[in-house]
Amino acid sequence: MDWEVKIETKLKDGILDPQGKAVKTGLKSLGYNNVESVHVGKYLELVLENIEQKNKAAKMVEEMCDKLLANPVIEDYSYHIKEMEG
Amino acid sequence: MDWEVKIETKLKDGILDPQGKAVKTGLKSLGYNNVESVHVGKYLELVLENIEQKNKAAKMVEEMCDKLLANPVIEDYSYHIKEMEG
Repeated sequence: MDWEVKIETKLKDGILDPQGKAVKTGLKSLGYNNVESVHVGKYLELVLENIEQKNKAAKMVEEMCDKLLANPVIEDYSYHIKEMEG
Repeated sequence: MDWEVKIETKLKDGILDPQGKAVKTGLKSLGYNNVESVHVGKYLELVLENIEQKNKAAKMVEEMCDKLLANPVIEDYSYHIKEMEG
């Protein structure tokens, strides 16, 4: 079975987010004064193929995040896995 | 009311994604041969405050994406809005 994986990473609370601050400043300068906070992270879409069980795919995703896709010291991540159609 | 907004951007189909390709190569070199494709985009979390209606918040998010957060020529985006608790 093939799996579509969507992963979001973001900086942990308390870690300085200069990119988020810059985006917030940019939005305010465009007149969007309702913006209270902005945090910027990464978004990844993966396709994993030939894995029989969802929990095996999930374990692989967590390993890949810890080793390469996210920096566990400063980033949190979350993910969703769904079986691909067709 | 205050709103929590989560936005994902990714390159449109057919646009070259060198960062995704590099991540895929990295994962393969770590032994994850089930990885069929990787696409890398941005993830943003915003808090919008003092907006009374959800559809008004949604309209603002779409405007902000078109003007600053995404590049509509090469990127697609999707978003979710939910009312903040407390």
